[in-house]
Amino acid sequence: MIPILFAAGAERWDAWRDPLERSFREVGVTADLSQDHAPDAVRYIVYAPGSEVQDFRPFTELRAVLNIWAGVEHITDNETLAVPLTRMVDPGLTEGMVEYVTGHVLRHHLGMDPYITGALGWEPRVPPLARNRSVTVLGLGALGGACAQALAALNFRVTGWSRRPKELPGIRCLHGEEGLTEALSAAEILVLLLPRTPETEELMNVERLAVLPDGAVLINPGRGALIEDAALLAALDSGHVGHATLDVFHTEPLPAEHPFWSHPSVTVTPHIASETRPETAAPVIAENIRRAEAGLPLLHVVDRQAGY
Amino acid sequence: MIPILFAAGAERWDAWRDPLERSFREVGVTADLSQDHAPDAVRYIVYAPGSEVQDFRPFTELRAVLNIWAGVEHITDNETLAVPLTRMVDPGLTEGMVEYVTGHVLRHHLGMDPYITGALGWEPRVPPLARNRSVTVLGLGALGGACAQALAALNFRVTGWSRRPKELPGIRCLHGEEGLTEALSAAEILVLLLPRTPETEELMNVERLAVLPDGAVLINPGRGALIEDAALLAALDSGHVGHATLDVFHTEPLPAEHPFWSHPSVTVTPHIASETRPETAAPVIAENIRRAEAGLPLLHVVDRQAGY
Repeated sequence: MIPILFAAGAERWDAWRDPLERSFREVGVTADLSQDHAPDAVRYIVYAPGSEVQDFRPFTELRAVLNIWAGVEHITDNETLAVPLTRMVDPGLTEGMVEYVTGHVLRHHLGMDPYITGALGWEPRVPPLARNRSVTVLGLGALGGACAQALAALNFRVTGWSRRPKELPGIRCLHGEEGLTEALSAAEILVLLLPRTPETEELMNVERLAVLPDGAVLINPGRGALIEDAALLAALDSGHVGHATLDVFHTEPLPAEHPFWSHPSVTVTPHIASETRPETAAPVIAENIRRAEAGLPLLHVVDRQAGY
Repeated sequence: MIPILFAAGAERWDAWRDPLERSFREVGVTADLSQDHAPDAVRYIVYAPGSEVQDFRPFTELRAVLNIWAGVEHITDNETLAVPLTRMVDPGLTEGMVEYVTGHVLRHHLGMDPYITGALGWEPRVPPLARNRSVTVLGLGALGGACAQALAALNFRVTGWSRRPKELPGIRCLHGEEGLTEALSAAEILVLLLPRTPETEELMNVERLAVLPDGAVLINPGRGALIEDAALLAALDSGHVGHATLDVFHTEPLPAEHPFWSHPSVTVTPHIASETRPETAAPVIAENIRRAEAGLPLLHVVDRQAGY
């Protein structure tokens, strides 16, 4: 029996127990999920940001920590963690993100809002076809890459940008600081799907927002820290940025007094763009533990220096 | 020089003239688009519903009428028309419809509206994945088929229904009256893309609306006549139908006093789901006239008895 600790929030245990037990059975791992292990017995920790476990030193037999979220910025700098850390890359997570991103890109592309709110009556505003609409996705990892390709499949002209060079079929791929300026200047609709790292912190500042075409729409389902809030608010006030649809924030829940709540050109969604769903994520955890037990390399290991 | 009359609304002539001239040149048809032809000289009419031409008898040399819209119900029963009639099937029309339909299906799937209007604050409502959401498309012609496939590509569970049996990859295809009941009963989101014919007139009546699952969403970018308005309003009032997004109506523009305007569960868009765009439609007209002149069969000929 392999002692595995679920340290991803007691409130989630009910939803995860069955999918985890089933997934371990399916890959032939005899897991002990009893949850009253002594720390020095635990071999793996299933983890989430904000977990009760912050000091990993008592877990002397620990072999890996498996994060149930894609984002790992709250754990990468934990110096008590001396074993490999994996991020969640699961089909459900990607699917949910693709659905959120394609949905909100189409919403802005079609100009739905004034019809939904009733601000526009019988006043036809025919949008261009998607093949004549430029969308830029910053970040071409598992989530950004899948979103870029889904948008290209809907005929959008997609530019993707990543720190290092990448190639994706049907996507104009740019990289580096110069590529970033070009990617932003093409963005009628901009989607932020970068990880949070020291380099991406407040990436969208006054200077970079100024590069966007007039009236550009910004969609941020990535990380709240990617945006300098005051700069975005100023760009929205001037109309240079036409609208912002934001799912993530510097502080969550978004404080009641934050100006985003009442700004007429901002849509707030409460961190729902991509929720980890146990049915699709548990098999990923189980497979990784099976690999570790078989002496195979773990999948989706975090590069803690790069920060993702 | 082939005399061709543009009888699709004088207000459209400016937008169509260049694309038509270019398209005729590209297929090698020497067209006379001078627009002051004597009726008995005209060989082809480029046509739109509501055209000033309603009596075709003076056009003694007429060989075909080429409609610039997909819908032909306002001309099929014109007894003065004795030559072939073609409908518009153009890639731009289909693309525009696919964008409208996927956009509004995703909007309802994701539950965007209360976040857009601000009715919901920081209250996460995580939707199921598209792979667990059932969408039904009534009508599997050029538009319905393309929409069904785009939705399937986004992982939705798609059921399609048509009068006659059809097969489309990745779509559960049903047909006939019994198939209709099954298709409706699966429709968490229902998309109407049937032509208007005597059989489809007020298809969505009290009985058929009752077959939908509770809280179903109805999207109608097809034809206003497909819906019995009073029955839909009653179903919306009771909550049996959760929302209706309507682009087409029995009378257009939708009269100011119509209850759809003020109903909290109705979104009205002003017949913008699929606007014919001259750039993509003109080549289709030109190619058909080239074929007629070469003695080849016309494409997209309307079966006037079937009504489409």
